Amino acid sequence: MSSVQSQLVKALSDEQVFQSGEVMDARRHDYWVVSHLRDFQDRLGGNPLVVVQPHTAEDVQKVLRIANETGTPVTPFGLGSGVCGGVVANAETIMLDMSAMNRLIEIDEVNLLATFEAGYNGLEAEEAAQAKGLTIGHFPQSIAVSSVGGWIATRASGQFSTAWGNIEDIVYSIEAVLPNGDVVTLGKAPRASAGPDLRQLFLGSEGTLGVITEVTFSLRRKSEAQAFSAFHCASMTQGFEAQREIVQAGWLPPVMRQYDFSEVQRNFPDEVKPDHGMLILVHEGPKAVVEAEKQAVQKIALARGLEQAPEAAVAKWMDHRNTVPSWDSFFKMNVVVDTVEVSAPWSKIDAVYDSVVAALGEVPGVVNASGHSSHVYRSGINLYFTFGALLEDPKDLEPTYFECWKRVIEATAAAGGGIAHHHGIGRVRRDYLDLELGATGVALLRTVKDALDPNGIMNPGVLLPAS
Amino acid sequence: MSSVQSQLVKALSDEQVFQSGEVMDARRHDYWVVSHLRDFQDRLGGNPLVVVQPHTAEDVQKVLRIANETGTPVTPFGLGSGVCGGVVANAETIMLDMSAMNRLIEIDEVNLLATFEAGYNGLEAEEAAQAKGLTIGHFPQSIAVSSVGGWIATRASGQFSTAWGNIEDIVYSIEAVLPNGDVVTLGKAPRASAGPDLRQLFLGSEGTLGVITEVTFSLRRKSEAQAFSAFHCASMTQGFEAQREIVQAGWLPPVMRQYDFSEVQRNFPDEVKPDHGMLILVHEGPKAVVEAEKQAVQKIALARGLEQAPEAAVAKWMDHRNTVPSWDSFFKMNVVVDTVEVSAPWSKIDAVYDSVVAALGEVPGVVNASGHSSHVYRSGINLYFTFGALLEDPKDLEPTYFECWKRVIEATAAAGGGIAHHHGIGRVRRDYLDLELGATGVALLRTVKDALDPNGIMNPGVLLPAS
Repeated sequence: MSSVQSQLVKALSDEQVFQSGEVMDARRHDYWVVSHLRDFQDRLGGNPLVVVQPHTAEDVQKVLRIANETGTPVTPFGLGSGVCGGVVANAETIMLDMSAMNRLIEIDEVNLLATFEAGYNGLEAEEAAQAKGLTIGHFPQSIAVSSVGGWIATRASGQFSTAWGNIEDIVYSIEAVLPNGDVVTLGKAPRASAGPDLRQLFLGSEGTLGVITEVTFSLRRKSEAQAFSAFHCASMTQGFEAQREIVQAGWLPPVMRQYDFSEVQRNFPDEVKPDHGMLILVHEGPKAVVEAEKQAVQKIALARGLEQAPEAAVAKWMDHRNTVPSWDSFFKMNVVVDTVEVSAPWSKIDAVYDSVVAALGEVPGVVNASGHSSHVYRSGINLYFTFGALLEDPKDLEPTYFECWKRVIEATAAAGGGIAHHHGIGRVRRDYLDLELGATGVALLRTVKDALDPNGIMNPGVLLPAS
Repeated sequence: MSSVQSQLVKALSDEQVFQSGEVMDARRHDYWVVSHLRDFQDRLGGNPLVVVQPHTAEDVQKVLRIANETGTPVTPFGLGSGVCGGVVANAETIMLDMSAMNRLIEIDEVNLLATFEAGYNGLEAEEAAQAKGLTIGHFPQSIAVSSVGGWIATRASGQFSTAWGNIEDIVYSIEAVLPNGDVVTLGKAPRASAGPDLRQLFLGSEGTLGVITEVTFSLRRKSEAQAFSAFHCASMTQGFEAQREIVQAGWLPPVMRQYDFSEVQRNFPDEVKPDHGMLILVHEGPKAVVEAEKQAVQKIALARGLEQAPEAAVAKWMDHRNTVPSWDSFFKMNVVVDTVEVSAPWSKIDAVYDSVVAALGEVPGVVNASGHSSHVYRSGINLYFTFGALLEDPKDLEPTYFECWKRVIEATAAAGGGIAHHHGIGRVRRDYLDLELGATGVALLRTVKDALDPNGIMNPGVLLPAS
């Protein structure tokens, strides 16, 4: 047993420190395709030095102090659903497994606040709110396999974000342990002008600035009414223009998703209209608003030449929206697939779509390059690309994967888009961070990181490019 | 001419550097009562060392480099409407007057974005948007005398915030010059998960972390419809409960303001109902939503025992909402007045109101202690207190002023509220910052400040408590 391991056992307890076995096997990496591929190909690096399960913020403090004293890297592990390589073990890493910090602390039905420990399961959190007639309103595809702390750490978005906000709009307060061991509780009131909003340091921090230990969300009452709409679009541009008019007119359907023809064929085989994309919407709110919104949306869409599509498409999406195939099922066919989400102002989104699809098409082996939009703003919209490559030699899967990412990111940036909408940076995007922040922005983030974590113990290799 | 002054003249130009005269006289302090009182009583400290008017971000870079090399403090001055003492000159200070950086750079009618240099006047910015059928949607009482950069630096709120958001919800991107001279441009896309949102460092930075040079806002189209509602409330609690039900049901009137009886007498003398407060609302949005919202609000209010009041009260507020009396007019009567804005979760707001009004009433000389709410959230609401004290000896005005502030802040914090809703910290609140952030939160902010501004040149004395 190494010195670090024995110090951890002494500071916490035997039951909280794992050096082998099932817990360690399940905490070597997150859901990043590349880790799964390396595992599938028996090329994955070894286990972490040790897996530690804190039960309290005090436990986290103890771990971070030991890490600082011994210069040992610490990687926080929520529930492992990240897809950008934010969690990859190596033999020096303390894997800080937050899954045992999973208490519901309070649901406050007067102020509509719900407080959970950071390792609390997302779906269980939403169910706890719904049991009181409330909702967090945050529905990432990963909801059943992600933690509330992970939502914060990755600056996540949910499927209903267009009306109910991204995670930064839903969070009320955050408790975190800083690399120096200090516990901060940020967010005391509905709103403050008391210096910069320090909660924002942790939203998107990806384990690099501290450890999120507790989260309070500002809930909503469940909506009085819900309705669906669906339209065929003759082109991506036609659909984008309709979406722009809808949201800029002041309507806020929680869900507006626009699929290109390739994705309609894959996701809505029963509703395909040849060569057409599809726009689906979910309306929610007070009954009178839902009715007015559905009418207004229909008027805008039809005036722009979209054609009514069966609402059954929306119901089908609602039922299957969280289904994800296993990466391994593709690897077995010598196929690697992944998704890349970006965003852009309206005036640039057509160019982003066209140039990314074209850039992916140039990569040898690529058999699918498609996209849909899923999060809408007055100023623009996201795009969520899917690529798939079929290779003859399994050795080509990983280099092809990285080449596809490179093409998507560079084409997006060249067309004026932002390179990361809601999955984060992790390892897969870190060398492109200057395309989002500029060189001076990256330097600013590094200055903050170095000030908070002078020994560089927190999740090294993630978020910031190699210096 | 000092060495600093001559370096500035050399780096910029003669016309941009002021060592006396009208420009210098008008840049000694902002709108903080205490500065005005000291001025009125001929006790104000001297002029700044120099006033500099940059024309470009490059000018700002040059000034900050000279300040760093010479260890000279720099205080950014927007248009001087701050009320917390964020701008106070002393004989060592370079006053960085942003008022000459006042170009409209672009109004983008496709993406609904408007970009201004930081010194652009707020009202002129809104008028530029409105000329295109658009709105920034940010209406602080100071709109005619504040700058768009100042809105960011103070984390401002406008009167229509309940629906259209506070400034952090409206800003799209920020250009700023860091203390080290780097220019950062933060905010490339409608939304990003690319590390912590670094724009947030400047929202509420109060000149302590750099100089905001350019701002882009995400605009809205002007609303299709507008309507008013007004109700008498038998008690603050009755009104708060109605507001809570309205906003938690999913309605978002841009304006919901609830005045206590004392403020109704002062602001709505024609609509007074004895011993009653008043709740006024402005509804905006698509016509169908405005109608549904007005009906729903009326139903909720009447069911809770509120009584319909004349809508003329709302029209009157709309007309007079930005009228502010001069501080001097009070000083001449040996009276000092000020406002203090705080916020709290719903369950604590009654206690905040009661304990603050009681605490103010105990201060010798206080003749007015009243409040209204003006910004509403699902989780709670703000309170905007006004105090007035009539003293026999003018020497007592300043100590009484600080005693009133102390009472309001301490009573708010003791009742579980947040100490600063939208005016910022400045000098008047800085020694109370730990009541909002905790000691570890203050230390975190100081760590960030020291990392970005190691020589401590940026607006010393503001935001952070003396260490």
